[in-house]
Amino acid sequence: MPIDPERFLADLHRLRGFGASGVGKGVCRPAFSEADMAARDWLAGRMEEAGLRTHFDPLGSLFGLVEGPSLLIGSHSDSQVEGGWLDGALGVIAGLEVARAAQEAGGPPVSCVSFQDEEGRFGVTTGSAVWGGALSLAQADALEGPDGVPLAQARKALGARVGAFLDPDRFTGFLEMHIEQGPVLDTEGARLGVVEAIVGLRNLTMTLKGAQNHAGTTPMHLRKDAFQGLAAFTTALNERFRNVVTPATVWTIGHVELHPNAHAIVPGEVRFTLQWRDGSIDRLDRMEAIARDTVQEVCAERGLGLDIAPKLELAPVSMDRRLRAALEQGAEFAAPGAWRLMPSGALHDATNLSRLMPVAMLFVPSIGGISHDFAEDTAEEDLVTGLRALAAAVSALG
Amino acid sequence: MPIDPERFLADLHRLRGFGASGVGKGVCRPAFSEADMAARDWLAGRMEEAGLRTHFDPLGSLFGLVEGPSLLIGSHSDSQVEGGWLDGALGVIAGLEVARAAQEAGGPPVSCVSFQDEEGRFGVTTGSAVWGGALSLAQADALEGPDGVPLAQARKALGARVGAFLDPDRFTGFLEMHIEQGPVLDTEGARLGVVEAIVGLRNLTMTLKGAQNHAGTTPMHLRKDAFQGLAAFTTALNERFRNVVTPATVWTIGHVELHPNAHAIVPGEVRFTLQWRDGSIDRLDRMEAIARDTVQEVCAERGLGLDIAPKLELAPVSMDRRLRAALEQGAEFAAPGAWRLMPSGALHDATNLSRLMPVAMLFVPSIGGISHDFAEDTAEEDLVTGLRALAAAVSALG
Repeated sequence: MPIDPERFLADLHRLRGFGASGVGKGVCRPAFSEADMAARDWLAGRMEEAGLRTHFDPLGSLFGLVEGPSLLIGSHSDSQVEGGWLDGALGVIAGLEVARAAQEAGGPPVSCVSFQDEEGRFGVTTGSAVWGGALSLAQADALEGPDGVPLAQARKALGARVGAFLDPDRFTGFLEMHIEQGPVLDTEGARLGVVEAIVGLRNLTMTLKGAQNHAGTTPMHLRKDAFQGLAAFTTALNERFRNVVTPATVWTIGHVELHPNAHAIVPGEVRFTLQWRDGSIDRLDRMEAIARDTVQEVCAERGLGLDIAPKLELAPVSMDRRLRAALEQGAEFAAPGAWRLMPSGALHDATNLSRLMPVAMLFVPSIGGISHDFAEDTAEEDLVTGLRALAAAVSALG
Repeated sequence: MPIDPERFLADLHRLRGFGASGVGKGVCRPAFSEADMAARDWLAGRMEEAGLRTHFDPLGSLFGLVEGPSLLIGSHSDSQVEGGWLDGALGVIAGLEVARAAQEAGGPPVSCVSFQDEEGRFGVTTGSAVWGGALSLAQADALEGPDGVPLAQARKALGARVGAFLDPDRFTGFLEMHIEQGPVLDTEGARLGVVEAIVGLRNLTMTLKGAQNHAGTTPMHLRKDAFQGLAAFTTALNERFRNVVTPATVWTIGHVELHPNAHAIVPGEVRFTLQWRDGSIDRLDRMEAIARDTVQEVCAERGLGLDIAPKLELAPVSMDRRLRAALEQGAEFAAPGAWRLMPSGALHDATNLSRLMPVAMLFVPSIGGISHDFAEDTAEEDLVTGLRALAAAVSALG
């Protein structure tokens, strides 16, 4: 199945003309913006030229279909308000090129897709979430963009284009190629990453309650300083996590609020969020137990009160063994000895698709790990290497 | 010199009738409010009844004067917006009672005072700061209250009352009795505290600069997490300070701001303030050197950038040896074996007066350490014990 790297790169550059930011290669193409709808209409034209039947579902996700059972390849063409040219777009144009090449070669049967609102103008991965059943259409319709416009109103822009939700059973699996959006491949000089799992995450928002006091008149031994509790918790947690984590596990205290947050007042309260991510549910569980034990011990030692809000969690998604093996084979073909297995630390449409069909993902390097920024970029050589790997995987799957 | 505890307590309760909050014994009597001016006029009347000549200076500080050289005793009668009945008022009425008793006894010569705006509706200890020369009258006049009214306008409420600044040389020294505003005496069951020094303070606002990154896709070993830097600094500092501090030294990280302060983003920056207080300049210096070394080490280890804003500092104020010895003698007379030496962790008018004359301070317990709150209180027995100690000290000084 001979792919055409130049046609692929040309289409990728054409796509960034829709909503071009004027800053580097950056784009501004939020879901259902004029630029987004114009890009989808252009994409639909390219799909039809390739002999694919186009179909918009009620959320505005655009499919380029072959008849009968087929593999589905794609990602999303909506972007962040200050987005890069490759986030989503790469997977969409790679899907288009592989489907097109397969049409030209007389098989295997490959359909392609551009999901809508992955970047979350309204929700998060909204188009694939509704199709996958994680969110009802009614729930999605009620979501509002930052301008207060509900999704129900925004998707009227589809007009006569709109069709029904597709039966997912027509697809034998979903492949998504994406930029890594992190620094691992770029730092290691690897050309490709085959995803083992999209990591799950847990989010615990905790409040330590001490005693607010004058910072001059309250001796150290009579204080119940909530911030000192947080510092002790942070240090202890780092040590205890060391026994259960892998190099791919991550944890972050990204949000901290002191009360009253004044120079000369001992902090009476601190509210903070601990978030951690890993591909293994068992490891996520063990980390949660350690976090809860540690915060309770710190509070007991220091006479602090403790509130823990109901946790947020997303389960990890394992990649399908057969699809992943094909991507590994494709990666070894396109970049012999220069690819690695890795988790995806970010969510993707593949997360939702995993409820409907087998899924697998392929990463190309992000220069400097930069994403969600006009400066996002990947060497064109790496984009083509990714395309070659994807095509080889599709051929291997037959 | 026979004092009258009942008259003293009755006047103290009369004073809390001006600006009574209706919540417990609390008061709302900010500088130059109607309640504050009414309280000052009442106080002036009580001073005159006691045979003292009253005098308002340009800032509204009210003196009750005897002729010739005299000791000055007092504090402030303005309050916080949500203030206690004793903060400042205790020292003012104690000064009135001792001056009154001395008049009745035919000596020694004692004048009394209520300074204005100690609680900082406009500045901080404004009335005594201008008299003491820490602040010019022009600088003070430009200060604005939270309602935007400048002090220059507010002090017009003095009208015909206003007189010149007094020559401080007429006073041989200043004694200030005050509630502790901290938990030390109450916790230890001590009845009185003789102040050794009003502590000095240093304030360093520092910014740690890391790299803002996606909390899912950035491996731990590639992060430059500014908050983790702060946690490590906090823990290391606590250990290193242990070698130089006394039980009276305090340090506080009371203000912390993360950027961007979001659950799923590795904090790229954290700005925080470290404040420490001690009665010894040498110890303040050593702590500053440790803080600066430690934050530099933490930043170097973690590849973080560092900004340190110009420091704020207030020098410690030592109490006059002779006045303090008299207060110790008075404390031993009024509460044998039940008093202690201690620092003042808070600022007081005595800080400014130390630029003009010898000063010393006496503390009574604050129940639960509570102050700047309607719930602030002290047992009446302790108030009277304080008055007896003060009067005995004055007698001892002759």
